Amino acid sequence: MSVDPRLSINQATIKHADLATALRVTADAGIQAIGLWREPVNEVGLDSAARMLADSGLRFTTHCRGGFFTLPDGPERVAALDDNRRAIEETATLAAAGADGSTAVLVLVAGGIPTGSRDLIGARERVRDAIGVLAPDAKAAGVTLAIEPLHPMYASDRTVVSTLGQALDIAADFDAEVVGAAVDTFHIWWDPQVLDQIARAGREGRIATYQVCDWKTPLAADVLLSRHYPGDGVIDFGSLTRAVIETGYDRDIEVEIFHADIWADAPENVVRRTADAFGAAISPHLR
Amino acid sequence: MSVDPRLSINQATIKHADLATALRVTADAGIQAIGLWREPVNEVGLDSAARMLADSGLRFTTHCRGGFFTLPDGPERVAALDDNRRAIEETATLAAAGADGSTAVLVLVAGGIPTGSRDLIGARERVRDAIGVLAPDAKAAGVTLAIEPLHPMYASDRTVVSTLGQALDIAADFDAEVVGAAVDTFHIWWDPQVLDQIARAGREGRIATYQVCDWKTPLAADVLLSRHYPGDGVIDFGSLTRAVIETGYDRDIEVEIFHADIWADAPENVVRRTADAFGAAISPHLR
Repeated sequence: MSVDPRLSINQATIKHADLATALRVTADAGIQAIGLWREPVNEVGLDSAARMLADSGLRFTTHCRGGFFTLPDGPERVAALDDNRRAIEETATLAAAGADGSTAVLVLVAGGIPTGSRDLIGARERVRDAIGVLAPDAKAAGVTLAIEPLHPMYASDRTVVSTLGQALDIAADFDAEVVGAAVDTFHIWWDPQVLDQIARAGREGRIATYQVCDWKTPLAADVLLSRHYPGDGVIDFGSLTRAVIETGYDRDIEVEIFHADIWADAPENVVRRTADAFGAAISPHLR
Repeated sequence: MSVDPRLSINQATIKHADLATALRVTADAGIQAIGLWREPVNEVGLDSAARMLADSGLRFTTHCRGGFFTLPDGPERVAALDDNRRAIEETATLAAAGADGSTAVLVLVAGGIPTGSRDLIGARERVRDAIGVLAPDAKAAGVTLAIEPLHPMYASDRTVVSTLGQALDIAADFDAEVVGAAVDTFHIWWDPQVLDQIARAGREGRIATYQVCDWKTPLAADVLLSRHYPGDGVIDFGSLTRAVIETGYDRDIEVEIFHADIWADAPENVVRRTADAFGAAISPHLR
């Protein structure tokens, strides 16, 4: 089966591969694009990472991840914002190093409710405030901040942004080229408003990235690791993908999977299987 | 500490107690109300259960549970609807047997996506259809069907109704005394629209029951068993409870906990601890 030209491998899918390996197995599989994570990039240093990415010939689709915005005022929050500024710079550098068609998108996982707090509404306000602080930096760097709503089962400990509609409400205070949303099927497939909100995200120019993977129960004991190859679960990729495509979204589509068994597999196998799964579950809805 | 007169023990909180034990420990703790489950009621037979309930002097608050509405047409669906009719009759009988102030509320867990299907939208339509079939039976029996939105992590395998707003949209086709919603903090606390939807539920006369328990991570390996005593987690019971009370809701409030450690504890301990937790986390917001 030929590989869909719009498939991008999110590096988390092959978590245990270092950057060199991730770039190599992705390119060797005939895949044209990759999304990177900060840790493996910083392991080799940003300049080396950019050079390696350029040498790979791959497009760069997203950088994961910024965020951790819910901390109350204090040195930890200041440090988190500074770290986000570094992530913005990394994103711009990598997007410039990637092949034509690369996009400078930094995915933001906003952060959970701080330890000892029950103030969900206050935590959400701090997310908006932090994005307000970082938006000028992102704009200057030509980077789009992609607010990622995560599934509500992560609302307390990973991000207080739980629906696409909520992400768009936050983004609405900012320019669309500076703040958008990550549309990830795993996180939003269950939402009764999802098709309307995808259409709205398109109208508002806010779909910064479209990411796909599947949902299946029983969930893994660590619910973070419950993401599956597209087609292995219950998500209707037809309706969601068509809704995204109908907005005019014409960029790459990432597959991002967290799963212990998949991480234990050889990265060459994982990228091949990902390409096959994408071809079967997603590609038919792109035409 | 005196026991809040509005506290009702949902029998699932003391899952391993039979009906006689559940009624006894609840009344002995000075608690005035109880919500029952079908299995322990049917274990002794409905007539006996009604007599035992009457003898206990407790108010009856809800019957758990009907539902399983997402099956496609066929004998399984017919059987499920027939079983719901029995549940409606049980609810009416128990409400009549309970002390003054009892309410005839049947909690509905709609059902997940049928095995082998990815048609979430179709499954939701079948929920509405099934409620349409049962509404005349409920009306004739004087029973309110309480659609319970469950947390979105249960959307594929337990219920395709995931938000209070969605439950209210379904209920809107029916009389408010016949179809309402169950407002359970565990399931809806994360929803950015929750306060607005509670207010809406009140305006529309649809709060059939208010249930409280807490959310804490890490989730249990079986995510069904992740419910905690009020106050042991991150839910802001102040804002949610005040929102419910401000609608004019003046009936009992159930504590329904599914948790392996709590189920392993002696029921006498559990009801006492529940009363204490309710007094500390909920009662201050009822005044």
